[in-house]
Amino acid sequence: SRTILNKQLHYLHSNKVAQSLKPSDDFIPRHLGNDSKSTQSILNTLGVKSIEELMDQTVPASIRLPADQVCKYKGREIQAIHSETLLLAHMRDLANANKVNKSFQGAGFYPTHIPSVIRRNVLENPNWYTPYTPYQAEISQGRLESLLNYQTMITELTGLDVSNASLLDEASSASEAMFMAYNVHNGKRNKFFLSKHIFPQNIEVVKTKAYGLGIELVIDEPANFDWSKAEEFCGYMVQNPDNLGTITDISEVAAKLREKKVVVTVIADLLSLAITKTPGEMGADIAVGSAQRFGVPMAFGGPHAGFMAVKDEFKRKMPGRLIGVSKDVHGDKALRMALQTREQHIRRDKATSNICTAQALLANISSFYAQWHGAEGLKAQANRVRNFADLLIQEFKTIGIKSVTDSVNHFDTVTFDAVASGFESSDSIISDFHKYGINLRRVDDRHVGISFNETTTLVDLDEIIEIFYDLKSKQTSAGFLSEEYYKNSKFTELPANLKRSTNFMQQPQFTEITSETQMMRYIQRLADKDIGLTNSMIPLGSCTLKLNSAIEMIPITWNGFAGVHPFAPKDQVQGYMQLIKTLQDDLCAVSHYDYVSLQPNSGANGEYAGLMAIKRYHESRGDFHRDVCLIPTSAHGTNPASAALCNMKIVVVDCDENGNVDVADLKKKAEANKDRLAALMITYPSTHGVFEAGVKEICEVIHLHGGQVYMDGANLNAQMGLTSPGFIGADVGHFNLHKTFAIPHGGGGPGVGPIGVKKQLAPFVPGHPVIPVEGKSDLTVAAAPYGSAGILPIPYAYIKMMGGKGLLASSQHAIMSANYISKKLEGHYKILYKGEGGRVAHEFIIDMREFKKSADVTEGDIAKRLMDYGFHAPTVSFPVVGGLMIEPTESEDKVEMDRFIDALIRIREEIREIEQGKADKHDNVIKNSPHTLKHTICDEWKHSYSREKAAYPAPWIHTRGKIFASVGRIDNVFGDRNLICTCPPVTDFL
Amino acid sequence: SRTILNKQLHYLHSNKVAQSLKPSDDFIPRHLGNDSKSTQSILNTLGVKSIEELMDQTVPASIRLPADQVCKYKGREIQAIHSETLLLAHMRDLANANKVNKSFQGAGFYPTHIPSVIRRNVLENPNWYTPYTPYQAEISQGRLESLLNYQTMITELTGLDVSNASLLDEASSASEAMFMAYNVHNGKRNKFFLSKHIFPQNIEVVKTKAYGLGIELVIDEPANFDWSKAEEFCGYMVQNPDNLGTITDISEVAAKLREKKVVVTVIADLLSLAITKTPGEMGADIAVGSAQRFGVPMAFGGPHAGFMAVKDEFKRKMPGRLIGVSKDVHGDKALRMALQTREQHIRRDKATSNICTAQALLANISSFYAQWHGAEGLKAQANRVRNFADLLIQEFKTIGIKSVTDSVNHFDTVTFDAVASGFESSDSIISDFHKYGINLRRVDDRHVGISFNETTTLVDLDEIIEIFYDLKSKQTSAGFLSEEYYKNSKFTELPANLKRSTNFMQQPQFTEITSETQMMRYIQRLADKDIGLTNSMIPLGSCTLKLNSAIEMIPITWNGFAGVHPFAPKDQVQGYMQLIKTLQDDLCAVSHYDYVSLQPNSGANGEYAGLMAIKRYHESRGDFHRDVCLIPTSAHGTNPASAALCNMKIVVVDCDENGNVDVADLKKKAEANKDRLAALMITYPSTHGVFEAGVKEICEVIHLHGGQVYMDGANLNAQMGLTSPGFIGADVGHFNLHKTFAIPHGGGGPGVGPIGVKKQLAPFVPGHPVIPVEGKSDLTVAAAPYGSAGILPIPYAYIKMMGGKGLLASSQHAIMSANYISKKLEGHYKILYKGEGGRVAHEFIIDMREFKKSADVTEGDIAKRLMDYGFHAPTVSFPVVGGLMIEPTESEDKVEMDRFIDALIRIREEIREIEQGKADKHDNVIKNSPHTLKHTICDEWKHSYSREKAAYPAPWIHTRGKIFASVGRIDNVFGDRNLICTCPPVTDFL
Repeated sequence: SRTILNKQLHYLHSNKVAQSLKPSDDFIPRHLGNDSKSTQSILNTLGVKSIEELMDQTVPASIRLPADQVCKYKGREIQAIHSETLLLAHMRDLANANKVNKSFQGAGFYPTHIPSVIRRNVLENPNWYTPYTPYQAEISQGRLESLLNYQTMITELTGLDVSNASLLDEASSASEAMFMAYNVHNGKRNKFFLSKHIFPQNIEVVKTKAYGLGIELVIDEPANFDWSKAEEFCGYMVQNPDNLGTITDISEVAAKLREKKVVVTVIADLLSLAITKTPGEMGADIAVGSAQRFGVPMAFGGPHAGFMAVKDEFKRKMPGRLIGVSKDVHGDKALRMALQTREQHIRRDKATSNICTAQALLANISSFYAQWHGAEGLKAQANRVRNFADLLIQEFKTIGIKSVTDSVNHFDTVTFDAVASGFESSDSIISDFHKYGINLRRVDDRHVGISFNETTTLVDLDEIIEIFYDLKSKQTSAGFLSEEYYKNSKFTELPANLKRSTNFMQQPQFTEITSETQMMRYIQRLADKDIGLTNSMIPLGSCTLKLNSAIEMIPITWNGFAGVHPFAPKDQVQGYMQLIKTLQDDLCAVSHYDYVSLQPNSGANGEYAGLMAIKRYHESRGDFHRDVCLIPTSAHGTNPASAALCNMKIVVVDCDENGNVDVADLKKKAEANKDRLAALMITYPSTHGVFEAGVKEICEVIHLHGGQVYMDGANLNAQMGLTSPGFIGADVGHFNLHKTFAIPHGGGGPGVGPIGVKKQLAPFVPGHPVIPVEGKSDLTVAAAPYGSAGILPIPYAYIKMMGGKGLLASSQHAIMSANYISKKLEGHYKILYKGEGGRVAHEFIIDMREFKKSADVTEGDIAKRLMDYGFHAPTVSFPVVGGLMIEPTESEDKVEMDRFIDALIRIREEIREIEQGKADKHDNVIKNSPHTLKHTICDEWKHSYSREKAAYPAPWIHTRGKIFASVGRIDNVFGDRNLICTCPPVTDFL
Repeated sequence: SRTILNKQLHYLHSNKVAQSLKPSDDFIPRHLGNDSKSTQSILNTLGVKSIEELMDQTVPASIRLPADQVCKYKGREIQAIHSETLLLAHMRDLANANKVNKSFQGAGFYPTHIPSVIRRNVLENPNWYTPYTPYQAEISQGRLESLLNYQTMITELTGLDVSNASLLDEASSASEAMFMAYNVHNGKRNKFFLSKHIFPQNIEVVKTKAYGLGIELVIDEPANFDWSKAEEFCGYMVQNPDNLGTITDISEVAAKLREKKVVVTVIADLLSLAITKTPGEMGADIAVGSAQRFGVPMAFGGPHAGFMAVKDEFKRKMPGRLIGVSKDVHGDKALRMALQTREQHIRRDKATSNICTAQALLANISSFYAQWHGAEGLKAQANRVRNFADLLIQEFKTIGIKSVTDSVNHFDTVTFDAVASGFESSDSIISDFHKYGINLRRVDDRHVGISFNETTTLVDLDEIIEIFYDLKSKQTSAGFLSEEYYKNSKFTELPANLKRSTNFMQQPQFTEITSETQMMRYIQRLADKDIGLTNSMIPLGSCTLKLNSAIEMIPITWNGFAGVHPFAPKDQVQGYMQLIKTLQDDLCAVSHYDYVSLQPNSGANGEYAGLMAIKRYHESRGDFHRDVCLIPTSAHGTNPASAALCNMKIVVVDCDENGNVDVADLKKKAEANKDRLAALMITYPSTHGVFEAGVKEICEVIHLHGGQVYMDGANLNAQMGLTSPGFIGADVGHFNLHKTFAIPHGGGGPGVGPIGVKKQLAPFVPGHPVIPVEGKSDLTVAAAPYGSAGILPIPYAYIKMMGGKGLLASSQHAIMSANYISKKLEGHYKILYKGEGGRVAHEFIIDMREFKKSADVTEGDIAKRLMDYGFHAPTVSFPVVGGLMIEPTESEDKVEMDRFIDALIRIREEIREIEQGKADKHDNVIKNSPHTLKHTICDEWKHSYSREKAAYPAPWIHTRGKIFASVGRIDNVFGDRNLICTCPPVTDFL
């Protein structure tokens, strides 16, 4: 099949074969918004003859790639598959090259059934996967409601007060819990206790984080906790069920720890909480874990929603996003992201976490899943997997297998001692089971785990038991396991102290949807409230909301990709291995880095991994003292927040009036810190949307003083094929696969942030404790070896279909379109910052500060008014307070951009009406925006302008249609003062 | 794998196995709208203790099935798979049991690539597949626009003036063309000429229709047409390219025929028309064919859109649906179905056709496909397949294969004489190719066809040529076929008289969408205008819009089902064969018929096939004189229209004042016609929504007088497990798989209408000329042996997941819910017709006639006002003029029904306001409905009521949301007088 593909490609790409014999399904023109005609029209407007001429004016010659390095690097060259249909066939081959065994490996990843109605209407629906993070809450109430349901579900299951809207995965959630405990004590308690009976990937990620922060980690048997030193510990963490499958009631320990002000975290299995005592009831302060088994495919490791729930007193220290209830200007209930002031973009290195994304799409799926099954369904499922384990433990006694899991205090997992059971080793019995297409878990040399899950049936249990009988050369007592066998089974009961005694999920959200029709309509109703790329352009600067093509998305729900456990043995995942290796090489070809680690599952996590690599690199050379990180003032807040996690000292570098890094200041500070200089973090083109001419020099200065250059990947969409981080001089940096490489934003996650490194840093990128990643370091930043591997087919497909020339075209068109909008807005708005050639990069900032004075109109007001025109706002107040940053990407076409331009020009006129006193300073279309249907159609219209002007301010809105904001302007302050982060309790509905 | 399923089911359905060990994904409660709690509440309202008690009051005891016959019949019993996940695994097994070879069989069916963006956002999107036929045009503008695009595409490609919105398939389109020719001459010319070089399935379907109508068919070489008798012929039909692949310019013949007023039809290949002279240019009056190869999977035969385009003068004789441009009350452009007066529900046996559905979903896909590729893309594709054929013809000369296709006047197909080429037979070489996974077409004993298609690549061509070289024991000249080979290839050109000289599809619809983003948004924008089941209940009486569950829909796009050619050999389609056999048996179990034919691909086609079976049955007994068909006045107009196609004489039977068949009148008419009595057509429960107690007696009367009983299947959803057609006494009847068995309505098709027959009729159900259907008759009613086989997985899955008890529950709940709404509306509206027990069946009629007098409000007004409440109207004016017929189905829940009830009660109050003079008789919320957003928000509001009352007449609309009508009340008369059925010509846009 690979031979056939090669033949196909041979013909497809041959210049000799007549064009008329080739398939006409080239992806590049489908991805680019503008065809040759509209491109020409745009170039005319820009006064250039060709797109190359525009590039020459935009990208400094000093960093332009020579022709032989365009998307090529050290023998690495992208093998394009431009044809959509050949690509799809190729993806099918890759998926088929993975052997999807039945997995009983557990350890945080479980086969699950995603209900078809959720799969089709959420996971496979661009209305759910294309929207951005719900910063613009008024046109995001649908997924905000769903995320509030998610938070409610998590608090109800964990028995704690406040849940966030998800974190990256279980392991990173655990590490965030440690960081929270550390912060609760303001860094004054430097020890953290970790039970050794935690999944190894959780241990490693916590360990890495502790190492970076300089926290002293004590990993031991809980029984060995040194109570005499309790007050030196900021926190204490255990897992339930633990690594071997046993559940422990820590209530008494937790109570004692609480007296000592030690923060207690339980890593919990979400499904088990339907029937077992909750972390909250046990007295834990924090519960973390993964919501994966609630309907989200294992997908070779992710993405999945990691969850975190805390006691009320910790809510303002909560990392990640928090959805809260507030009210709008009309007094109606309205949802929005709460307590934004905790986050990186405000608090920078003092933030509660460096993570600025969530796993929104996956959290939503898990939440819909919980609604679908309800409390009773979840209980039934939890009891079922426990009963399976119970039957197996009983049968083990008959067969002579030595279980090390408690025969009563267990949930879904049975671990046995293979050697004590008479087998050669854990490996030998695991490979015996492989012959039957069954994967068991290798816990260590002698222990093997079997975890049951939603998809397990009695026939599976039969088969497992029969294989054991066979291996032990025993006859099954009744031949074929029979219904009699299962009729007469007795199950143990959980002891009273481990049983869940409280009811949960009794709110209408979790009880009233019982039919598929109801679920389908609920999902649709929510989606109808939100703007996604299906509705309009989302011109968010620095976020790159380009097309997420259907063809890129289709493979990810195939079982060959979705059904694979992250710890499946290598010989079962050859399709993934080929995809990963190729993707790594292709990213190197684009970036001119020498190696790529795919483990970091968000941009911020990539930053963290990259800085840790730098730290380790310096240490490996004996430079333990190198801990200064230079960061320009223009940097995204994540940069300092990530540096803080590596215990780096942040030194801020000034920018000049043109928005460029002040090279003189940089030199001064590099020089001043030359003995301690660890790194510079820089974004390129700058967050101001400018290709700074001095960037090469900047890198040289850093290298001269012994530092390494970290290049933020946020703006890579302006670089592809034109220049590259490696070519410019960066040593390490992340790729935002969800920006540059077409992974959809999912309504607020997943993001994926692999890092590329030059060869000196390659030994220090993340490794993995369970599945070794080609001799990499003992650092681990995510639960799965390849992070969110399940969505890597998306960037893989994007890169293959575009090829080098298509990626170059992406960046060219992205820059062209930004310049087009910028040009057309000139004269109406002040454009901040341009490059030396008078051009902006792939994004640019318009300045709204003057309107504050002239008309009391802020950039936020304009963002809301854009909703009335049917548009999602550009990025607000970043990086310039008072600015809007606009990034159209290469996927938007001229007609759509023209509408957007028209909307902004009309808003300028509306501002002028205020300035000129034609419109009331308080009661005007801008201050009152967005206008909801309810308000616009209400009987009492008390405004000084008309309803039509409010809701249909441009004639093209009638034909184009728009998503009306479903609530009016939201009161954020009210919501933060009266913080509510769950659905109202059931008593409110009685 | 089947063994595993059986084990799974054994455990799943065993009473002995503890419930706690079974999976909890039973489909039945997901399909039913009401859970046990809301069911109980409804039963309380109805004053019954149990649903069984309600059934006893509703269904006459005389026809109730004994317990041992509930969904069981003569050893046939439904083997249920209640678990959603087991069902899905089972469907995967079935799909995998089909071997999907590369198909070069052609003959009207071609592999095609459905662009992913269309697949995901149309074919797999419930917003597209769940809506109903766009009778309520104001909330259907999205698909009306898309269907108008389709009509425009067809007229542009065929070079004719008017296209309908699709017919069932190519073969039935051809037969409709013959019927049109016959009608053009008012039945006075009784001969029809058919070229023998037409695909055999087309010949057979035309033959069957000619036989039924008594038209004398002359099938011969076109050259043999007897010009001296030309004026005896109503029509003349050829196919281009013909059965062997050759294209003929019939311009001169057509001109001569036109002089003789013989109607000329060309069956055309839609893709070929991109580069060849069009039927219109050749002088044809009618062009028909299939739009399948425009992006619709072969799906083992269907569903696909059959097309028909005609000269302007024939437009009012056009069968099927016609989308036309009109204007709304505000003067804005608005689309709707035009010329409804041609159709069966008005003209009954005088209608232009009995077909009352279209293939809307498939027509829309083909239309989006044409937009995606544009004229240039289609031309390139057409040239490509022609060039492939050209290369093969050239290579054949070298190899020594004797082509019988013209070496220049060809398109995509090459037919060769296998015997003359030195092979044993056509079968031998076909089976040689099977070894390579390639299917060729068996034209006849010695001829074999090879048709190229969109998916063909040079690698495929290489392989085919190499196989021929191998089979002829020759060496390929250059070993591996090389790019040199393809570089040096020369292609013939079509001669000037066969080349297309005119441009096409230059309207913006076909030129402005070039990127995937544009296409995705266009699809979304259209969908946003339409009400589907994703938005609200669609309570259309007699249409049964129940849940189309995602799990039922998922398998149909799998390649194992979608990728199969309908003429694939039996051993490659074992999955389909098993599915079909089981579905036939299961339908027998439900209906108590002895045999089921799945060929009829719509309800009306089923009626036709059933009546033809009756006709043949009588003839087989020598009863050639039996030609009277009794039809009650209450029958759907399709019934007489179908009977007319069988040349039956229709005798109408009266109904009594309770809406029941007047048994005395029936007896009288049966007696009076006893020597000529062929059949009775009856619907049960009646179209009035009543279980008539006399139905058994009615059947007996018919049998007594030598007639056969045809039972219309429209209302089968009230019968399942309670009674059955066979049990009642019917001999034959169709199943509306798109009503009763969960196939979605597709926005106006596909419908599927298999027939069940008692054993005496079994020899007379349709057979097939290419793929014999187990010894059935020589009648053929569809192009594919099993009709729309590709969507049979839907009813199959539905029946399997529901099982006998679930199907019974479906009917019980459907009846319960209809009675609930009826009960709640009592006192507000007059309910017409109830059964003897005071209950309605699964639907009922409310009478609006009194309001015409009291408030000048008609049933149509109320239908439009319901849109303002966010609801799709019930069935309007059928079967009672002045009535609304309401059918909630079993899938709607109490909360949704309560909203619908509330809306109707509020409308009654609004009528009262007019009656009492509180509201203006002309300017009121009802007469002005539906209220669009544009109108409601416009500056000049001149109505005597408020905007809020217009658009938000009930408080729950705010939370539930609604689809606003996108145009105001449409002027049908204006549109029919100024008939426009295509997008405006390109000149309008200049």
